[in-house]
Formats: sequence, structure tokens, C-alpha cells
Amino acid sequence: MTTTQPASAIGLDTVAELAAQLRVDSIRSTTSAGSGHPTSSMSAADLLAVLVTRHMHYDWDAPQLPVNDHLIFSKGHASPLLYSVFKAVGVVSEEELMNDYRRFGQRLEGHPTPILPWVPVATGSLGQGLPDGVGIALAGKYLERLPYRVWVLCGDSELAEGSIWEALDKASYYQLPNLIMMADINRLGQRGETDLGWDIEKYAQRAAAFGARVLTIDGHDLTAIDTAMTTAEDIAGSQPTVILARTIKGRGFSEVENKNGWHGKPLPPDMADRAIAELGGVRNLVLRGPKPAPAEPGPVPDMPTTWRQPDLPAKPSGTPPEYEVGVKVATRKAYGDALLALGVRDERVVALDGEVSNSTFADEFAQAFPGRYFEMFIAEQQLVAAVTGLAARGYRAFGSTFAAFFTRAYDFIRMGAISGADLRLCGSHAGVEIGADGPSQMALEDLAMMRAIHGSTVLYPSDGTTTVALVDAMARTQGISYMRTTRGSLPGLYPAGEQFPVGGSKLVRSGENDQVTLIGAGVTLHEALSAAEVLQGEGIAARVIDCYSVKPIDTQALVAAAEATGGRIVVAEDHHPEGGLGSAVADALLGAGQQNLHLTHLAVTGMPGSGTGEELLAWAGIDADHIAAAARKLVGG
Amino acid sequence: MTTTQPASAIGLDTVAELAAQLRVDSIRSTTSAGSGHPTSSMSAADLLAVLVTRHMHYDWDAPQLPVNDHLIFSKGHASPLLYSVFKAVGVVSEEELMNDYRRFGQRLEGHPTPILPWVPVATGSLGQGLPDGVGIALAGKYLERLPYRVWVLCGDSELAEGSIWEALDKASYYQLPNLIMMADINRLGQRGETDLGWDIEKYAQRAAAFGARVLTIDGHDLTAIDTAMTTAEDIAGSQPTVILARTIKGRGFSEVENKNGWHGKPLPPDMADRAIAELGGVRNLVLRGPKPAPAEPGPVPDMPTTWRQPDLPAKPSGTPPEYEVGVKVATRKAYGDALLALGVRDERVVALDGEVSNSTFADEFAQAFPGRYFEMFIAEQQLVAAVTGLAARGYRAFGSTFAAFFTRAYDFIRMGAISGADLRLCGSHAGVEIGADGPSQMALEDLAMMRAIHGSTVLYPSDGTTTVALVDAMARTQGISYMRTTRGSLPGLYPAGEQFPVGGSKLVRSGENDQVTLIGAGVTLHEALSAAEVLQGEGIAARVIDCYSVKPIDTQALVAAAEATGGRIVVAEDHHPEGGLGSAVADALLGAGQQNLHLTHLAVTGMPGSGTGEELLAWAGIDADHIAAAARKLVGG
Repeated sequence: MTTTQPASAIGLDTVAELAAQLRVDSIRSTTSAGSGHPTSSMSAADLLAVLVTRHMHYDWDAPQLPVNDHLIFSKGHASPLLYSVFKAVGVVSEEELMNDYRRFGQRLEGHPTPILPWVPVATGSLGQGLPDGVGIALAGKYLERLPYRVWVLCGDSELAEGSIWEALDKASYYQLPNLIMMADINRLGQRGETDLGWDIEKYAQRAAAFGARVLTIDGHDLTAIDTAMTTAEDIAGSQPTVILARTIKGRGFSEVENKNGWHGKPLPPDMADRAIAELGGVRNLVLRGPKPAPAEPGPVPDMPTTWRQPDLPAKPSGTPPEYEVGVKVATRKAYGDALLALGVRDERVVALDGEVSNSTFADEFAQAFPGRYFEMFIAEQQLVAAVTGLAARGYRAFGSTFAAFFTRAYDFIRMGAISGADLRLCGSHAGVEIGADGPSQMALEDLAMMRAIHGSTVLYPSDGTTTVALVDAMARTQGISYMRTTRGSLPGLYPAGEQFPVGGSKLVRSGENDQVTLIGAGVTLHEALSAAEVLQGEGIAARVIDCYSVKPIDTQALVAAAEATGGRIVVAEDHHPEGGLGSAVADALLGAGQQNLHLTHLAVTGMPGSGTGEELLAWAGIDADHIAAAARKLVGG
Repeated sequence: MTTTQPASAIGLDTVAELAAQLRVDSIRSTTSAGSGHPTSSMSAADLLAVLVTRHMHYDWDAPQLPVNDHLIFSKGHASPLLYSVFKAVGVVSEEELMNDYRRFGQRLEGHPTPILPWVPVATGSLGQGLPDGVGIALAGKYLERLPYRVWVLCGDSELAEGSIWEALDKASYYQLPNLIMMADINRLGQRGETDLGWDIEKYAQRAAAFGARVLTIDGHDLTAIDTAMTTAEDIAGSQPTVILARTIKGRGFSEVENKNGWHGKPLPPDMADRAIAELGGVRNLVLRGPKPAPAEPGPVPDMPTTWRQPDLPAKPSGTPPEYEVGVKVATRKAYGDALLALGVRDERVVALDGEVSNSTFADEFAQAFPGRYFEMFIAEQQLVAAVTGLAARGYRAFGSTFAAFFTRAYDFIRMGAISGADLRLCGSHAGVEIGADGPSQMALEDLAMMRAIHGSTVLYPSDGTTTVALVDAMARTQGISYMRTTRGSLPGLYPAGEQFPVGGSKLVRSGENDQVTLIGAGVTLHEALSAAEVLQGEGIAARVIDCYSVKPIDTQALVAAAEATGGRIVVAEDHHPEGGLGSAVADALLGAGQQNLHLTHLAVTGMPGSGTGEELLAWAGIDADHIAAAARKLVGG
């Protein structure tokens, strides 16, 4: 595979010195900062000392090198250890470590983020680094086809997170030997013993049952660590590796070793002095381990037949699909069509889905590009984490499931924003419109959830043409972008080729003497259009705005409409009243200082049950009749 | 333990007839409704037929009987099977099953909810029924001390959800033999084979590694099912039981058996006719299994020593804690104090935490009431699910963790609302105020997320006195209630005994000639008060409102303030701009038709890093200086 510097280049005696340095620097940096997690760093110092000197293949002067291994601190609170490693390899100075850690405006944050070029993904919400690593390992094995490894340091507390087991399940399913989990089993969590303590055997059974090759070691025995990592770094096999290292929290300073009550606490200066003395004093070793050998992408590996799509269709077209005005198509279907066409044009587009691809229509892409599609089964946390990992490798990954089920992965989406990752997410089956399946399948919180994410883009197309344009826009959008699609078919509103810039809107219907503005998106836009038709018959002129871009929203158009219609506005949305389209409109208008507003907000205020979409839109008070009634009241009032 | 009707009361021949009836009725009801999941019901029909006739101890005429067993369909899409069972035991009529299923306004919804008295928790988002069942089993073993069992039907697709493994981990940790998972391993998911297919051995290894007693059977062999359930229903041991049943999707109708492409599809009428014929026609058996024997709560069982708190303090006082005006206390500390006192007064109060109880201060309760505290470790999904299960048994369960980490459980909170459960959640360490730990630990989306939940109550106290009053209010609040607490200490504002009704607010500072209203909550209320002081020195009179009840919000007070101060309002919040306090204020004022508004909304618009709380409040533009500047601009403008 790769030829590397001999593993013996740096001897274990030197590694031991380095481990002491990492401990000392973890203590010094946290004591200096007045906060942080020295004891959680000290337990894993030996693992990291062996790893960076002898096993991790990394060119520290070229972190963007595609063949570099990856290092993820899933236990992000051990950042003092990570930053001490960065000092030890010479990319962070002594001064930065001592003066900047956890300080305002500095890059050595309390938990690592990709502000640092050697950090692939942000961590700090436990149980996410390993699932993110699955995404990177998928890229390495199946897309980049490079022999890099993804080394993930996990704590034992976070092994209680279900997402860890979702990750191992997928790592074994996708046969990812390039994923290596180093579990620092130091027995103690934040407030006491973990649920399994030092029962390494139980951890081993679990990891093995989830398909990993398990190596159990004393995490302070450098030779044992070295041997395990030598085994792990050979990625010729098909299993992910889990190194279970029995460690001692606070290892190296007898006053805190294996003692409860020292989680997340820096040592007071006098204790720090004693600890540093016990550890043999301050050192300033600068050591680097092996660099990766140059490598070219290898051949596409055989994919397990269980997940290879059996029937490949004829090569699809890269021409964006077109839909006729007035002809009905579900926006979820248009999403699938558009993603397929985009996939033809852009080889970096990748798709993932949570076992509902025949509902989200991601299956069109899956059929056409089995090598660029990853089925995540019903594991939405891992779905978003894999999108994050793939994004970290530069792929344009689109993840889809029912919009309601992205609530399962909200923490991962939030962390994706902190990673600065470009996540492209599509949630189908939004709102009461889905009908008979009932409230568990109805996304009624998704717009609020996605709008509140930093830097997010929230899109909500109302027809096929819009969907196609916005899927293309998502491919070019930075940060978290989210598209909400509708289950039922909706008639085409716009001719093919119409432009839909992010942050824009469409004035779908307007006249000289409009008395009221009706605002909708998705299914409610169509209801608003019907309402406008009814109102016209009554002599009330209503303009209708398609707010396909919920965030950023088209403030200018909203202000213009408010001005034109005496501030009379009806917003209707298939979502709970809080934080969705109505909020976006209100925030925009008030933020712009718009006066003389008479805003009626129609949304789903009750708890829906089953029914037809039509019945439920009426029950919720967001159908054409209710929109028209609200408009009448505003105009009459 | 209990004496029951002899298991042989209903013979297996009759059970076989019942199984056929359940299949036929699953087909008839879905074909009649035009949607639903017949094939997912047919695979589990034999399991349910044996269970309800011979093993589930349930008085169908008295679903509220405390000694009843519980039945949870974690695979909620198999609702046709559940409702067919309800017909078979005589609590749902033939007419209701055929005419109402999935119809508007009816109780036989697409996925089961507790609108039906025999359904303990809503399901339909997969991987939640088992974790909810852990909560009920905890109540049964440790609180109610009754010998009921919790039977949970899981699908195989949902075993990919990490939450299932969180649940088994906790079930074995808490030694819950009363939790019995029946896994319907029918191999096929929605769009194809599951990741493990029929690899029952792998499932068995996983379940065993997570501490379960595993019984592997042919899920269509009635004798094997009966034997397994006889083993499972003996709850004398300490392990949860997992029955792995190898089944065939669509079992009983040869045209669809084990065929892909039939998930979630009703049979067309002609196929339904052939299926019913193949199954031997329509039946109308009404059969009931054993009733539970009367039972009194038993003795408190020995708790595993690993999680018993070692040092019990002297009996705490039930008198609500008091804090002095001007003296600093963190609202998270006041939460812990208040919960402890509440626990003394109310034996139905129970607390749970996600391994950060020494940060949320739930540890005060844990120390005082080890028998009413459940450590959920770092598994937030299971944390909320256990709260849901305990709430279903009538306990007032309070769950706490860092506010940021409730994003991990958003799907569970959403489903809790659909269950109609009273979930009491407290999230600490909100916003940039937490300082050095950085953005992964800063809740900046929690208010938006919690406001968007149907029927939720969102509370945000600014001092100790308020916190105490609101914790007591939460104990009396229905639905999902959420309290946001602050990491740092804040000076007391209100004397002990002050009232804080949900939906109210406090006019903390006001005068005759106020020119501007400053609105805050939590840390920003204190910043607003400082700003008002500064403004006073400049001759600008500012009134300050404490919006401790973010939802419902005090619209009347907001309108009055707007009227009094010429519509000039500054809202400051330690949260992203979308969906939080500012949105709540805007929605309320616009919803009330308030005119002449000049609203400045200060919120966290950037991506924070580390720093001190003070530095970060300034950086975000939500500190006293920025509030004062915004007010000046409004007054001058």
C-alpha cells in the first residue's frame, strides 16, 4: 500500500518523553487558561504520543494533502492534549499554547474546530467524531480511493451515545478498515464512574458484535499501544478497528490519578507545579512521525453485493429536468430528478439517504450512481454525520430523509455549522399535507429548527421548476442548506429555465390596485393562489408572493408588497406558528422598520391527526378558504 | 410473583385462527383506508396472537389499572396489526376498524397515539418505543414496584437507530427484566433489505453484548413463540429479554411474501380478496388473555451498588429555597435547590440527568433521593425517552442536561408532544455567556427548537427567586415544559415569595415618561438593567421587561409597553436571531395588531468562539453597551 518511514524512526524512549511533555503541556495550558480538561487529556497522552510519532502518516506542513491521515478528537474536551500535540509537531508555538488557549478571538478554542487546519470536523458534542469519521473513511475508500486512515480518539463516556453504535454499524457494513477508533477507557465521566467503568470485556463484546476488529490494551504500555497501532494501520482487511485502551484519568500526577471530582478542572498553580515536577518538568521536544507516501487514487474497489444496486439504468442526462406549467409533480420527485441530473454534471456530487430513498426520490441518483450513493439505513444521526465527513473531503453530499426525521439529527446539524461544513439536506413529506400517516411523520418544526442554525439557507419550492433551480443552487451554497419538499403533487407554476436566486422571491400574481398580500410557500402558495382567485371574484385584488427562500428572505419584496397593499398581509404555512415562514416574514418587516402592518399569520396551531391532506389543511386553517377569509377580514377591517 | 390464568387457557389452534384474523383484518383495514402497512403487520401477527392470548396480563376493560402489562408498538407503522388486536380483544369494533382507520377526526390514526387508552406512548418515529419502554420499566421496578411487564414490538429496520442500543444499555444497567423486546426480523425495510437482513446471529451477538437475555425463534412457529414468551414473562431475573423472531414480511399471502416493493402499500381490492381467501376468510373471534393478578407495591428492591449514591445527606427541607436581592446565584444552582425542595414535598417528582448533574445541579436531588433519581449517562435520547415513559406512569419527571445537548433529543421531544406527555426539561449553560468552552457547548437554538413544539411552555428565569417559582410551576404544567438556565451567577432581582405566573412578565423598571422599552431574559435582562441605568444618566428613561415566560408570552404587557414608549423596543437575547425571544416578542406584537413599532432585535448573529462571558456578550452585541446604543438610536431617531 503506502511505503512509510520505518516505524522505528522514533524510539519508544523518546515517545515516553513526548508523552510526559503532552501531559505537562496539557496541565500548563489549562492552568494558564483557568479552565479546561487536563485529566481527560492525561489519560490519552500515551496513545497520542505513540500515534503521532510512529503511526499517523501526516505532513504537518501540508494539512490539505489528500493522502494525509486524519485525526479526530471525538472527545473534544481533550483539546489540551490535541493542542499539545500540535506544539510537539511544531505547528503551534509554546506562546500560542500558553497564551491563547480558550482566549477570546483565538483559534485554540475550548473544543477543536476546523479553524485549525489540522482539525477536520468540530467536536465537543460527544459521540459525533466517530460518525463524522465514517464519512471521511467512506470518501477515502470509495471516492478518493486513497490509503489514508481516520484515527478517532473517543472517550468512554461517549460510548453511551447511540450514535457511536450507528457509526460502528455503518463502518462494518461498508467495510471500512481505514477507520480506527482509539477508546480511552479511563473509567471516570464528569460526575462519577461511567456505566461500564473498566469492564473492558463488555466494551469488547459490543464492538466485536458491531463488526469491529477489537484490540484490547493497557493504554499506558507504549509497546502494547505501538503493537496495536501497527495492526490497526494495516488497512488491507475489511473491518474497522477498535483499540480499547484501559487508562487512568489524570495519569502521571499521583494526586489526581483515578480520582473522581477532577473532570473539567484545571489544576491550581501550586498543584500544577507539583504535577509538572512529578512528570519530570517542562520539555520542548519537536518530533514528527511518518509522512504519507505519495499515492494516486486506486481502482474502484468491489462493493459489497448486498448494497450494490442490481439494475443500472441507461446513462441519464445531465440536462436539468423540465416540467410544464399546470402539470402536477411532487417537489420531492423533482428533487430526485434534479439531483440525478446534477450528478451527471458534477462528479463530486454524492447522495445519502435514511432508508426512504423511494419516498424522497434519492433512489434515482442511487440507481444511476451506485458508487456515489451511500445508504445510511434508519440512522439519521449517522446520515448527517456522513454528509459532514464527506463535505470535509470536498464532496457535495446531499442527505435526504423525511423532514420530520431530521429532528433526530439536530445536534449533528448544529455541529456541522460549527465545523463550517457545507451540508446539503432535503426533507420530504412536510406538514399536515401528508395526510393519513399522522403527526409522527409530519414535519411541523423543521423550518424553525433549520432557520435557527447559524448561517443556514432554508429553501421551500412550490413546483418542479423551482425545485430544480434550488437543487442546483444548493450545490453552490456554503454552510447548511436545507430544502423542504412536499409529498403531494402540485401544479407547475413557472416555465423551465426560470431563475430562482437564493434570497429572492416571486411575485406570482399582482395588479395595480392590490389590497392585500398573500404569502405562501410549498403547498400554501397554491392555496394562496386559489384564495386570490376567489377574492378576485368578490372584487378584492390580492397579490401573491412565493417565498421559496425562507432564509435568507426577500425583505425588499416583502417591504414593497406591504407598501403596495396598505400593510395588509396574510402569511400561511404548513408548520407550527413559531419560527417558520411567518416568523421570517415578521422578522424581516420589523427589522426593515416597516410601519402600518396588519399581518395575519395562519399556521398549524393544533395537534393534527390522520386525514386527507385537503381535510387537514382545512382543519389547520391554512387552506384557500381560510386564507381568503383572513384577507377579507383585513380588507374589510 | 403474580398468579395468572393458566397460559393454556386458549389453545394454540385457536391462536392460529386469531393470527389469521389479525392478518386478514390488517389487510382489510388498510385496503379500506387506501394506505398503511399491511405486510409489516402480517410478519408480526403470530407474535401478537400468542402474546395477547397467553402472555400479556391486561384487563382490557380497565386500561388504567396499575398492574396491567404494557404493549408498545415501537414499529408504529404496524398500526393495522395493533388495531386488529384491539378488535380481537373487543375494545374496537369491526365498524371502527373498517371505517375509521386513518380517517380524519378518528382515533385509529396512521401511527398509534395515546388518544387510544391502550396506547402508552405515541410511536411512528422509529427507535423510540423501546427507549420509552425503559422509562415505564424503570417506573415499574423502582417506583411503582409492580410486577407488570413492558412488551415492545420492534421492527428490524429500526435496530439501526442508535437509540435502540442506548435503551438496551440502560435496561441492562438498571437490571430491567420487565422489559421485553420482540424484534420482528422480516428482513425487508422500506426500500430494500435491511443492513443485517436475516443475520439473526449478528443481532443476537449485539443484544447479548448490550446485556440482554436473547431468545432466537422462528417468528411463525406458535409453539416456539409461546415458549419464548413463557421464558420472557418470568421477571425474576435481572436482564431485559430480547426475542429475535425470524419472520417473513407479508406472511400469509403468497403473492407478497418476502417480496420487496410492498412496504407501506395497501393491497388493491382484488389482491386483498385473494389474500383473504388464502388466509381462510374473515373471522370475528373475540378472545382475551390473562388478566393481571391484583398486586400491591412490593418492597424497594436492592439497587445496584454502582449507581447508589454513597453519602445520603441529612433530610433536606421542603421549604422552597430563598435568595436575597442583590446576592448572586446561578439559575442552574437555583434549579437544583428548587428541585430538591420540590422532591421533599412531592413524592411523584423524579429526576434524571445526562451525566452532567454536577453542572445542572440535579445532583442535589440525586443525593437526597437516590431511589427517585436515574442517571442516564451521556445518552440524551434515552434521557428524554425515560422522562416520557415515567410521565406515562404519572410521575413528574424532570430531565436535565446542557441546553445545547437537548438538540440531540429533539425528535424525542417532538414525539413526547404527540404522546401528550408532560415532559419537564431543564437545559443549563445557555448561550455565549458560558464563555471559554466554545460554541459546541453553547445553546443558541434551544429557544427556537422548544417554542416550535406543539403546546410547549418555555421559561427563562433571570434570578434564583424566579427559578424557584418556575420549577414549581413546571410541576403543575401540562405538556412539554422547558427551562433555560444560565451558567454564571446573576444577582437576585426579586424578593422571596414573589409570584411568577406562566405567561406573565415583570416590569422591572419603569417610570412615567419612559421613552424606550428594553426586553431581556436571563443574562440579557441584567444587561438591559445596566443599560437602563446608563441611559438614565443621559436623560433617557427606559423601562425594562423581564420576559421570563417566553412561551406563552405576556402579550398584554408587551402591548402596554409599546404604547407607553412610542413603539420603541429593544429586545436582546443570548440566542441566534431566529425563533427565540425576539421572534416571540415580534409575533406577539404583530399578532395583537400593534402599530407604530420600532423594534431593534439584538441576538447572536455570528459564530462564537471561546472567551469570557463578558467578552462574548460584547462581541455578540447583546451586552449593556449595545443595548444602550440601540436604545439611543431609537430614541434619537
